[in-house]
Amino acid sequence: MNARLPPAVQVAKVLAFRSASPSQGLAQHPDELAVEEPLEIRVAGEPLAVTMRTPGHDHELVAGFLLSEGLIGSRADLGGIHHCARPGTEGAHNTIDVVPAAGVVLAIEATRRGTLTTSACGVCGRQMIDDLLQRLRKAEACPPFSRAFIAGLTGELSKRQPSFQRTGGLHGAGIALGETELCVVREDVGRHNAVDKAVGRLVLDDRLPTPGAMLVVSGRVSFEIVQKALAAGLCGVVGVSAPSSLAVATAARFGLLLCGFARGDAFNVYAGAERLAD
Amino acid sequence: MNARLPPAVQVAKVLAFRSASPSQGLAQHPDELAVEEPLEIRVAGEPLAVTMRTPGHDHELVAGFLLSEGLIGSRADLGGIHHCARPGTEGAHNTIDVVPAAGVVLAIEATRRGTLTTSACGVCGRQMIDDLLQRLRKAEACPPFSRAFIAGLTGELSKRQPSFQRTGGLHGAGIALGETELCVVREDVGRHNAVDKAVGRLVLDDRLPTPGAMLVVSGRVSFEIVQKALAAGLCGVVGVSAPSSLAVATAARFGLLLCGFARGDAFNVYAGAERLAD
Repeated sequence: MNARLPPAVQVAKVLAFRSASPSQGLAQHPDELAVEEPLEIRVAGEPLAVTMRTPGHDHELVAGFLLSEGLIGSRADLGGIHHCARPGTEGAHNTIDVVPAAGVVLAIEATRRGTLTTSACGVCGRQMIDDLLQRLRKAEACPPFSRAFIAGLTGELSKRQPSFQRTGGLHGAGIALGETELCVVREDVGRHNAVDKAVGRLVLDDRLPTPGAMLVVSGRVSFEIVQKALAAGLCGVVGVSAPSSLAVATAARFGLLLCGFARGDAFNVYAGAERLAD
Repeated sequence: MNARLPPAVQVAKVLAFRSASPSQGLAQHPDELAVEEPLEIRVAGEPLAVTMRTPGHDHELVAGFLLSEGLIGSRADLGGIHHCARPGTEGAHNTIDVVPAAGVVLAIEATRRGTLTTSACGVCGRQMIDDLLQRLRKAEACPPFSRAFIAGLTGELSKRQPSFQRTGGLHGAGIALGETELCVVREDVGRHNAVDKAVGRLVLDDRLPTPGAMLVVSGRVSFEIVQKALAAGLCGVVGVSAPSSLAVATAARFGLLLCGFARGDAFNVYAGAERLAD
């Protein structure tokens, strides 16, 4: 293990075939992998959820997840977030406990039921989607965004994903507050975790909600990404790749700007085009 | 809605900016989106799990999911799989019920606990990972694979993802049985669902386990993809993109061939290189 590696990256030995013909192209060389480990999230000692994540920024991941689940409204609901040291066991860095602020009770039962799900998502079932939508509000009004600003976001995100550049195995998420550069960028093997980490940084800094905040993601935009953006009070999502049908329908319903295939100087607008300057 | 569209695809109106400068590049045109809808899976009427999936091949999705969860060992454990018609309600095609074969009881409680998770994954926590690993066996011996065969797999998968080509929003998964062409290819907004659908087709055809079966996926390879391959008795996974650290460690432990960055004529081998012919 190279001591200079970030916690998101691990070295492995790889056999690389650079031509598939039997006579050529085999070489062993070191490669860098995106680290994936489970994180168990507890609230006052009670298990809440577990996610496969890339270690690092765990406090942010938890804060963003709690906000997205509607369990907290802001940093004021949080007393503390601590990794659990369990002497004599491996993986103490993979369990984290949330202590609510004095007098605050987090209604974790709904989330525990709500996260009953298969592998691909955490927000599930028509009833659950309706429940989720009921606690979302219309995205706030904000000054219109220029096309040039939108067009520049994914390029900036890409430049600020160092561990993706090393491993090719990490999703990235960033947030811009108004037409400025991205104020936070986070990476994770799970795209939803990357969003939770970026949002969670703003929760911990008590900067949410804030007018004109925009989420930028390195890949596709599913329903859940849109739901997380709305739960955080953001007013737009820009993705490098395609949105799903339900992401587009939900963004349209709540007045969220949703752009996809944002690459180079071009992008598509799927919802909320009224938020763009002429 | 175009009646000729596959169920995985929906038409939307999009504003396309082809240059971000204010003076040019705005055009409205139709675009095609990958469909995302929730599917609630029940066993004998009891809710088991819900996943956000692309409609189509739901029976396969369920069969593959049940095998991956260890709830069934083969098709013989299944009595029937039926969409629930609920007159007067929307979304009857989004609820599906599994009837076990006569005398078979599916132990769904473990799965219901086991799928307590956040958005990014369905297999969670160190204990859960250990439990999962305990029911997996070493991948079976099989004839060695040629480099040319491995190198050709992702290109073939790509050619057989028609809805991805239309939308850019779907993951693909295929399975080859021995050194032949892919015998099944499935697409879904969730990468794990695409794998469950492809595996599920083979479950329903009673073709698993079979020696020398290989899974090919269009994206990254996480722990869960490796776990699903092992649960299905496959002997290799080939991905277009990067594997995670836990995917590599798990493949190595169970003797699974794991190749990543398989593009054109080149690929990397992360585990199980002994399964390749010289």
